[in-house]
Amino acid sequence: MRQSQLFTKTRREAPKDEVAKNAQLLIRGGFISKEMAGVYNFLPLGLRVFEKIVNVIREEMNAIGGQEILMSSLQRRELWEKTNRWNDEVVDNWFKTELKDGSIVGLGFTHEEPITNMMEQFIPSYQNLPTYVYQFQTKFRNEERAKNGLLRTREFVMKDLYSFSKNETEHVDFYEKAKDAYKRIFNRLGIGNNTYLTFASGGSFSKFSHEFQTICDAGEDVIYIHKDDYGKGLEMHPHHAAINKEIYTEDLKKDLGLEGSFIEKKVVEVGNIFTLGTRFPEALLCRFKDEQGKENYPFMGSYGIGPARLMGTIAEVLSDDRGLVWPAEIAPFAVHLIAITGGNADVAAEAERYFEMLKENHIEVLFDDRDVRAGEKFADSDLLGIPTRLVVSEKTMAEGGVEMVNRKDKAATIVAESDVIGRLLK
Amino acid sequence: MRQSQLFTKTRREAPKDEVAKNAQLLIRGGFISKEMAGVYNFLPLGLRVFEKIVNVIREEMNAIGGQEILMSSLQRRELWEKTNRWNDEVVDNWFKTELKDGSIVGLGFTHEEPITNMMEQFIPSYQNLPTYVYQFQTKFRNEERAKNGLLRTREFVMKDLYSFSKNETEHVDFYEKAKDAYKRIFNRLGIGNNTYLTFASGGSFSKFSHEFQTICDAGEDVIYIHKDDYGKGLEMHPHHAAINKEIYTEDLKKDLGLEGSFIEKKVVEVGNIFTLGTRFPEALLCRFKDEQGKENYPFMGSYGIGPARLMGTIAEVLSDDRGLVWPAEIAPFAVHLIAITGGNADVAAEAERYFEMLKENHIEVLFDDRDVRAGEKFADSDLLGIPTRLVVSEKTMAEGGVEMVNRKDKAATIVAESDVIGRLLK
Repeated sequence: MRQSQLFTKTRREAPKDEVAKNAQLLIRGGFISKEMAGVYNFLPLGLRVFEKIVNVIREEMNAIGGQEILMSSLQRRELWEKTNRWNDEVVDNWFKTELKDGSIVGLGFTHEEPITNMMEQFIPSYQNLPTYVYQFQTKFRNEERAKNGLLRTREFVMKDLYSFSKNETEHVDFYEKAKDAYKRIFNRLGIGNNTYLTFASGGSFSKFSHEFQTICDAGEDVIYIHKDDYGKGLEMHPHHAAINKEIYTEDLKKDLGLEGSFIEKKVVEVGNIFTLGTRFPEALLCRFKDEQGKENYPFMGSYGIGPARLMGTIAEVLSDDRGLVWPAEIAPFAVHLIAITGGNADVAAEAERYFEMLKENHIEVLFDDRDVRAGEKFADSDLLGIPTRLVVSEKTMAEGGVEMVNRKDKAATIVAESDVIGRLLK
Repeated sequence: MRQSQLFTKTRREAPKDEVAKNAQLLIRGGFISKEMAGVYNFLPLGLRVFEKIVNVIREEMNAIGGQEILMSSLQRRELWEKTNRWNDEVVDNWFKTELKDGSIVGLGFTHEEPITNMMEQFIPSYQNLPTYVYQFQTKFRNEERAKNGLLRTREFVMKDLYSFSKNETEHVDFYEKAKDAYKRIFNRLGIGNNTYLTFASGGSFSKFSHEFQTICDAGEDVIYIHKDDYGKGLEMHPHHAAINKEIYTEDLKKDLGLEGSFIEKKVVEVGNIFTLGTRFPEALLCRFKDEQGKENYPFMGSYGIGPARLMGTIAEVLSDDRGLVWPAEIAPFAVHLIAITGGNADVAAEAERYFEMLKENHIEVLFDDRDVRAGEKFADSDLLGIPTRLVVSEKTMAEGGVEMVNRKDKAATIVAESDVIGRLLK
C-alpha cells in the first residue's frame, strides 16, 4: 500500500487525556483512535495488526479441534437468572438496555449461559462429546475506570472457547491441550519469554484457574515467580506456575511444593483458562445420554484471550523510545519501503520498481512515497514499527542495491537487488 | 471437514416460533440459531457463508479505494446531540445504556457522527481528499417487531462505507463507482438477475437515495419496476431505476421521464447508497483547507450493505422445496462428499481417498462420513445446499468413478477419478 494513500497520519504528541503508553504510541502511529474512555476505534494499520493476532489465535484454536461460531451480544435475562448472574449485585459490570416492549436485555460480558443453552440441542448423546466451540465476539463490560488504553476497555473482542466433555478426565485432557495452544500463541506473538503460566483463583467454579501473565509495568495484576523460573518465561519448569497475588500465601506455596524465594512482578493477564465443571449445564438443564443411557451433565471449561489487549501489551513491552516494534507474525506490513528521492526522478522510479517487485512476490509492503523530508520518513517508520525497512536513495543506488534495516536492532546492510526477495522470505 | 465432527445437526422441523422461511431453512440446516426475536447466532456453516459474503463485499470495497477500519458500538451522546439524532423522538430505534458514572451512552445504529468527528483530524487539507473508509461493524437497532429472520434483526453486522469528497462533483464520481461496485457484489452473490436499482427517498439529506431491491415475497418493501426492465434485474436500462412505493407518484414518473406501465413487487432492500452532503461535517465542525486556503466542508456519502440480510435474502430466493441452494462464491463448502458404504470397507476407504485428494487440491469439502442411512445423507445434503455433491458407493466404484450431482438442477453424471479435480476447478 502507498503511504500517500493511507488516510491516517502520524502525530508527534498523543492526546493529553491519554496516559497509557500503549494507547499513546498506537494513537500517535494512527493505529487506533479514542472514542471515549475505554472505547477505541481500529484504523487501517491497527485493524491489520488486530486481524493478524486474531488469525494466529484462530489457527491454534482450529489445531486443537475448535469450531468457530459467532454469538450475539444481546442477552436474554431468563438465562442469566437461572445461573444467578443477572443481578447487578452479583455481576457488577453489566451493560443493560431496554427493548421496545419494556423488557430488559443485557450486553454479554461473557457467554457461558447462552452457549450452554444453545449446545443442549446439539449434544443429545455421549457420541457428540467432547466438542469445542469458540468465537471472536465483542464483549461489553461496564468498567468503573478505564485509563489503561487497550489493556482495559469497556468494549472489546474476546476469543472465548468453551469445551464440553463427557467427564472430568476428558476435560483435563483438553485443558492441557488448550494450555499448550496458548503457549504457542504467546510464543508466536513474541512475548513467550516474558509470559508466565500462573495459578489464580478458580472463582466459584474450581480451586484454581490458570492465567497467562506477561511482565509489564502497566499491568494491573501482581504475580510471584519462582526464582528458578524468573527470566525463562514459558520455558519455566514444566511443573511450576507463578502465583497470582490474590491467592499467594506461604501455605499455598507449601501445598504446591514450590519452595524457595519468589520474585514479585507487575503483569498483564493476556489469557486465562478455567475449569467450570457442571455448574452451567446443571442450571440450564443441558444434558446428554451417557454410554449407559443415563442423563448426565457435560463437564465444561472456558478459555479466553483478548486480541486487542494482546496488541496493547505488545505495544507496551516490545516498543522502544523511538516507537513500536512489531513481531513479524503480526506486523501491519512485512516491509516498509522508503524512497529518499531528493527530487531525483531516477530514485523515485527505482523505488517504484522495488514496490512492484515486492508486491509481485506477495510481500506485504507499505511504500512511503510521500513528498516529505527524509528525517520525517525515518521518524514515522520508527514509530510504526514495521520489522524491515528498505531504503532507496541516490546513495543506495550508487552502492548497487537497497539499504535493509532491522527495526529492532537497527542493523543495516546494503543488499543487492537480486538478494532482496530471498532475504525477506528467509 | 468431516461431518461427523461438525457439532451442529440438521433438524426436520424448524422451531414453532420461527415463521420466516429464511430462518426456518437456516435453523434446520444448523447455519444459525435463535437467541431471541431478531437476534441470531451464527454456527460453523452459517459463519462460513457469512464470512464469504463479507469477503466478496470487502474485495469490491477495496477495489474502489475503500480503507477498512472498525469503530466502536458504544457512542458518546454529545456527538449525536450536535446533529440532533440523540433524541428518541427523532431516532426511534436507539438502544441506550448507562455507564457507572450515570452518564448515558448509545449503541450505534449507524456511524456518520463518530466517523465524521474522527476524520476531522485526518483531512486537514484538500490533498487528503477524497477518502473512503468502511467497516464491517455490529449495529444495534431497537426494532418494534422482528419476525422476519435475518431480514430484520436487532443486532447485525453492517458494511458501512463513508465517502469524504472535496465537492459535489467529486462525490458524484465516487457515487457512480460505488453503484457499480454494488452491482458486481449482487451479481457475484447470484441475485443480480433479481435485483433492481431503485429510487428512494433521500431522507433529510438529499432528494433521492438509491436502493438495491431484490424481488422476494418475504420482503418488507414494495417497488415499481418499469415493464421494459422487469425480468432483467441489474441488466435493466442504464438510465432507469425502479421506484420505491414510498415516493411513487405519477408526477415523479413524469419528472424522471419514465413513461409506460410499472409492475409492483415485494422486495428486500439489500443495499443502499446515500448522498449526505455537508450536513454532518457542518454540525461536527469537520473542515479542510481547499486549494485557496479557505476552510470548507467535505461532501459526504454513505453506502450500506448488511451481509446477514443478504444471506437471509439468498436463503429466501435461491432455495427450493428440498432446501438451500448456495451460489458457488458463498457456499460453506464447494463440495459435499458423501460416502454410501452399506458397511463395505472398500467403499469407506475409497471415500477417504477422495477426501484426501480434494483437500490436497485445496477444494473446500464437507465429507459426510457419518454412519447414517443413505436417504438421510441425501436429504441433509439437499437441505445444506452445497453446490456440488460427490457420491461414492459400490455402484459408482463399479462404474469407475464418482457420481457428481449439481444441487441446483440435480444433473448427475459419473465422472472418472482422473477428471474430478479438473471438473471441480473449471
